[in-house]
Amino acid sequence: MNGNQKRIEILDTTLRDGAQGEGVSFSAQDKVAITQALDALGVQWIEAGNPGSNPKDLEFFAMATNLKLENAKLVAFGSTRKKGVKPAEDAHLQSLLFAETPAVAIFGKSWDLHVTEIIRASLEENLDMISETIAFLKEKGRFVIYDAEHFFDGLTANREYALSTLKAALSAGADRIALCDTNGGGFPDAITAGVTAALQTLDSADKLGIHVHNDCGMATASAIAAVRAGCSHIQGTLLGFGERCGNAALAEIIPNIELKMELRCLPRGKLETLYGTARQIAEIANVAVPDAMPYIGASAFSHKAGMHTDGVLKTRRSFEHIDPSAVGNGRRFLISEVGGRAAVAERVRKFAPEVTKDSPVIASLAAKLKRLEAEGWQFEGADASFEKIVRQELGKYQSLFAIVAYRVASEHSTPNAGAYSHAWVKVLVDGLYEIAAAEGDGPVNALDAALRRALKRFYPELEQMRLTDYKVRVIDGRAATAAKVRVLIESTDGMNTWTTVGVSTDIIDASRAALVDSIEYKLITGEACWTTS
Amino acid sequence: MNGNQKRIEILDTTLRDGAQGEGVSFSAQDKVAITQALDALGVQWIEAGNPGSNPKDLEFFAMATNLKLENAKLVAFGSTRKKGVKPAEDAHLQSLLFAETPAVAIFGKSWDLHVTEIIRASLEENLDMISETIAFLKEKGRFVIYDAEHFFDGLTANREYALSTLKAALSAGADRIALCDTNGGGFPDAITAGVTAALQTLDSADKLGIHVHNDCGMATASAIAAVRAGCSHIQGTLLGFGERCGNAALAEIIPNIELKMELRCLPRGKLETLYGTARQIAEIANVAVPDAMPYIGASAFSHKAGMHTDGVLKTRRSFEHIDPSAVGNGRRFLISEVGGRAAVAERVRKFAPEVTKDSPVIASLAAKLKRLEAEGWQFEGADASFEKIVRQELGKYQSLFAIVAYRVASEHSTPNAGAYSHAWVKVLVDGLYEIAAAEGDGPVNALDAALRRALKRFYPELEQMRLTDYKVRVIDGRAATAAKVRVLIESTDGMNTWTTVGVSTDIIDASRAALVDSIEYKLITGEACWTTS
Repeated sequence: MNGNQKRIEILDTTLRDGAQGEGVSFSAQDKVAITQALDALGVQWIEAGNPGSNPKDLEFFAMATNLKLENAKLVAFGSTRKKGVKPAEDAHLQSLLFAETPAVAIFGKSWDLHVTEIIRASLEENLDMISETIAFLKEKGRFVIYDAEHFFDGLTANREYALSTLKAALSAGADRIALCDTNGGGFPDAITAGVTAALQTLDSADKLGIHVHNDCGMATASAIAAVRAGCSHIQGTLLGFGERCGNAALAEIIPNIELKMELRCLPRGKLETLYGTARQIAEIANVAVPDAMPYIGASAFSHKAGMHTDGVLKTRRSFEHIDPSAVGNGRRFLISEVGGRAAVAERVRKFAPEVTKDSPVIASLAAKLKRLEAEGWQFEGADASFEKIVRQELGKYQSLFAIVAYRVASEHSTPNAGAYSHAWVKVLVDGLYEIAAAEGDGPVNALDAALRRALKRFYPELEQMRLTDYKVRVIDGRAATAAKVRVLIESTDGMNTWTTVGVSTDIIDASRAALVDSIEYKLITGEACWTTS
Repeated sequence: MNGNQKRIEILDTTLRDGAQGEGVSFSAQDKVAITQALDALGVQWIEAGNPGSNPKDLEFFAMATNLKLENAKLVAFGSTRKKGVKPAEDAHLQSLLFAETPAVAIFGKSWDLHVTEIIRASLEENLDMISETIAFLKEKGRFVIYDAEHFFDGLTANREYALSTLKAALSAGADRIALCDTNGGGFPDAITAGVTAALQTLDSADKLGIHVHNDCGMATASAIAAVRAGCSHIQGTLLGFGERCGNAALAEIIPNIELKMELRCLPRGKLETLYGTARQIAEIANVAVPDAMPYIGASAFSHKAGMHTDGVLKTRRSFEHIDPSAVGNGRRFLISEVGGRAAVAERVRKFAPEVTKDSPVIASLAAKLKRLEAEGWQFEGADASFEKIVRQELGKYQSLFAIVAYRVASEHSTPNAGAYSHAWVKVLVDGLYEIAAAEGDGPVNALDAALRRALKRFYPELEQMRLTDYKVRVIDGRAATAAKVRVLIESTDGMNTWTTVGVSTDIIDASRAALVDSIEYKLITGEACWTTS
C-alpha cells in the first residue's frame, strides 16, 4: 500500500447505535474507555451518544471535553428540529450544541411514509426541517453529518422525494450525507443502485456515506458495494453491535477494504491492532467476540480438518485468504501441537532476553498455556498473571506468602437488614502466621480487605496499592450457577497498573487467585521496575 | 408466491462441513436428530459425513438406512480417487458406496497450486482423477454432486485449467457442479464473475451450484449473487457452522430468497418453521443461536430505541423489513433507558389488556423503571423480573414465600484441599418455617440448592424447573471488589424459558434476588399459562 491511496472515512457508532443493541449498555466510564480504544485504532469519527434524549450521554460529553484524542473527533447525534419549532428554540438542538463536539450528526426523514405516518408532517415541512436544522448547526460552526434515514426504502416508495431530501441537506451545507438502510432490508445491488442515484443527483462523491444494518446478513457486502459505487464515508460499529441484528461490523469492513481493495481506512500500522482493539471493546461491553467472526474471531484462522492443516503447513495460502497477522490475529491448528510458540517467545523476551522460539522453556510454557486456556484461563488481558507463570517456568518465581486458610460468609437474617459479608484469612510469611478479619461490600470485597490486613504487618508497601477494576465473566453459562467463572482484577499503586486473572467454579476462589497474583506482582516488581499497561 | 416458481435446491452440510467448525461435535445419535429436523424443514439434500475418513460417520450411515425421510435425500461426502489408484480399488471410494446413500458428493481440485503443491500430481492426472471417479460412481448408480474446491482462486490463478476441471466433471456425468470458495476470500462480485464464466463454458444452468465460506463476512451475499448469476443449488449450513468463520448460513439465505427474490427453496408452509428448526439444531449442537442473527435471532425483531418502538406501533414496516412471523419469529419491545412509555405499555397489555400508554400506572411504572435502571438494574433481557414489577405496580402481586435468613460460606483450609462452599436458607411459607442446607460448586450454586430444597416441601412443582444460564456483570468496575454487580439467571421448566435479574454490591445478594424472582415466576405462572421466550 502506498501513501497516496484514497482514504475511506470511518465513523464508529458503537456508543450510539451500538448501545441500541439488545444487551448492550455502557456507563459514562465505559464510554470514555471505548472512545480511547477507538481513537487509538485510528477511526476518524466517534459518534458517542444522543445528549438530547439521554442524561447519561450528557454526562459523558461533559467528561469528554478533557479527553485528548489523537486521531478521532467526537460526534453528537440527534434529529432534525421538531415540527413547528424554530431551530434556535428547539431544546434538543440546544443540548446537541451544549455537548461541544466538533461534529454533529443529524438524522432526517427520506421516506415519505415516515414523514406522513410517523412524524405526521407535510412533505414540504420535512424539507424545511432538514435544511433549517443543518443551516443552524453550520452557523454554530459545527461539521454536519446528515443521516438520510430510510433512504433506500424511500427511494423505492417515492424516488423524487427521497432525492429531494438529499438536495435540501446538501444545499443547506451538510458536510457529509450518509445514506441509511435503517431497516436493513436492502440487498447489496439495491445499495449500489441507491448510491448511484444519489451521486447522479448530487455530484458530490467526497461527501457521500453509507449506513447499513444487518437484517439480511449482508451489511458488510452492502457497505463494500457502496464504496465500489462511490461512497467514501462508512458508518458502522466495530463489533457489529446495534438495533435488532446490528449495524455493519467495521471489524469486517476495514480489513476487506484495506487488504483487498487497496484503499485505506486507518493510519499506517493500525490494522494490526484490530484484533486487540476488538477484544478491549468486547471486554468493556462484557460480551465475547464471536469465535467465528471474520478476521478477528478466535477461530477465524483455526484449521480443524486434517487436510486443511496439512495444506497450510505446505503452503499458507492453500487454506488462508490473508495472513492472519495483518489484523493481529494468529493461526491455530486445532488438532496439533503446533502454533502459538512465536507469540509466547515474543512476550517472554521482555524479561528474559536470552530466550528464543526454540528454547525448551517455550515448548513447556506453550503446553502449559494451552492446558490452562482449555480450562478457561485467558492471559490476553492479564499480563501480571502471565508473567507469574513465565517466572514459574523460568525458575525465577518465589512465593512471598501463602494463604493457609480463609472463610468468607454472606448472610442476612431479617428481610430488612440487608445482606452482610465478612471474612477471615490466615497467612504464612517467612515462618510467621497472621490472621485478620474484615467486613465488606460483598464477599469478595471482604476477602480482599482481610487478606491485605493480614499481609500489611509484613509488607507495609501494600498501603500504596488499590484495586481499580473488577470483572466477572461466566465461561460456560449453560452450567448455570455451577458454571466456571473467570475474574479479572486491575490494580494500581499510583504509578503502574496491572491486571490478573483467576478461574474457578467458585467465584470466591477465582477472586482469591486473582487477588493473590495481584499482590504478589506488586511485591515482586517492587518500585515500578516493570510496567505492564 | 405461486407453485410455478423456480425452485432453488438446498444442500445442508451441517453434519459434514459444519462439524469442521471449532467447538462443533456430533454423536451418531445427534446426527440422526439433526437429519430429522432438516428433513422436516424440507431441504433437498443432507450432506451427512465422510464415511471414508471418519468411523463415527460410518456408524451414522449404518443407522440412517432405516430413517424414513420425507423431503431430503442423504449425501455421503468424499474426495476423488487417490493418485495412481484405480477407482474400483480405492478404499475411500468403496466406503462411500458402502454408505448406500442415493447421492455422493466428491470434491476435486480446480486450483493448479493445489494440484502441484498439495496433492503433488500432474495437471493431466488430476483431470483423470476427476473424470474417472465420477464415471465410476455414476456406473454404480449414484447421483453425483461434484464440488470444485477452490474454484474461484483457481480461476484467478489459471483460468483455462480451472474451467477444464469443470468440463471434465460434466463430461464424466456429474449431476451437479458446485463452485466452491473454499478459503472464503472472494467478494460477491468475484463470485458473480466466476459463475458467469462457468455458465459460459458449460451451458448447464440447472446443474450449477455454489458453496461459499464466510471469511470476509459476505457468504450470504455471495450465495445470493451466485443465484442471481444463474446457480440453482446452494450448499451451506443452517446456522453457519463450518471451518474457520463458517459456511454460508442457510437460515439467512433461505428467507432472503423466498421473501425477497420470489423464488422457492422449501416446500410450501415450511419457512415459518425456520425459527424453531434453528433452535432445535442449536440445542443438539449445544450452542446458542446468536441473538443478533438475521431472521432467526432473538433480537432480530427487537426494538430498543424509543423512536423505533413508537414507529412500529404506528406502522409495522416503518422499522421492520419483513413480518417476523414469516420465519416463525416474533416482535419484542425492549425496556430500557433509550425506550419510551409506548414500549412499557405494549408489554403491560400482555397481561392487563385494559392498560393504555396514557394510563397513570404506565407513568408510575416508567418512573420506577428509570430509577431502577439508574441503580444498575436492566430489564431488557429479564422479562420475568419485569413482569413481577408490573404485577406489583398493578396490585396483582402476592409473595408466595419469604427468605427469613440465609448464610452462605466459602472457605478452604489447606492449599491443596480446594475451595468449598455451603449454604443454609430458612424460608417462611403460609406461616410455616422450613430450613435446608446444601453444598455447591461455589456459593451461588450452594444458595440455589439450599433454597430450592427448603421450598420443595411446599412447592413440589419446582422439581421441573432448572437454571440454564447464569451471567454476571460488574456495573461500575472502577469501585473494584466493592462494585455493584448485576446477575441474570435464565431458567426453564422444559416448556418455557424465562430470565430474571438481581443487582447488589454483594454478588450473593444479587443472585438471591434473581433466584427468588425466577422461582416466583415459575410458581405464579403455573402450568405454562404465559410464555416469555
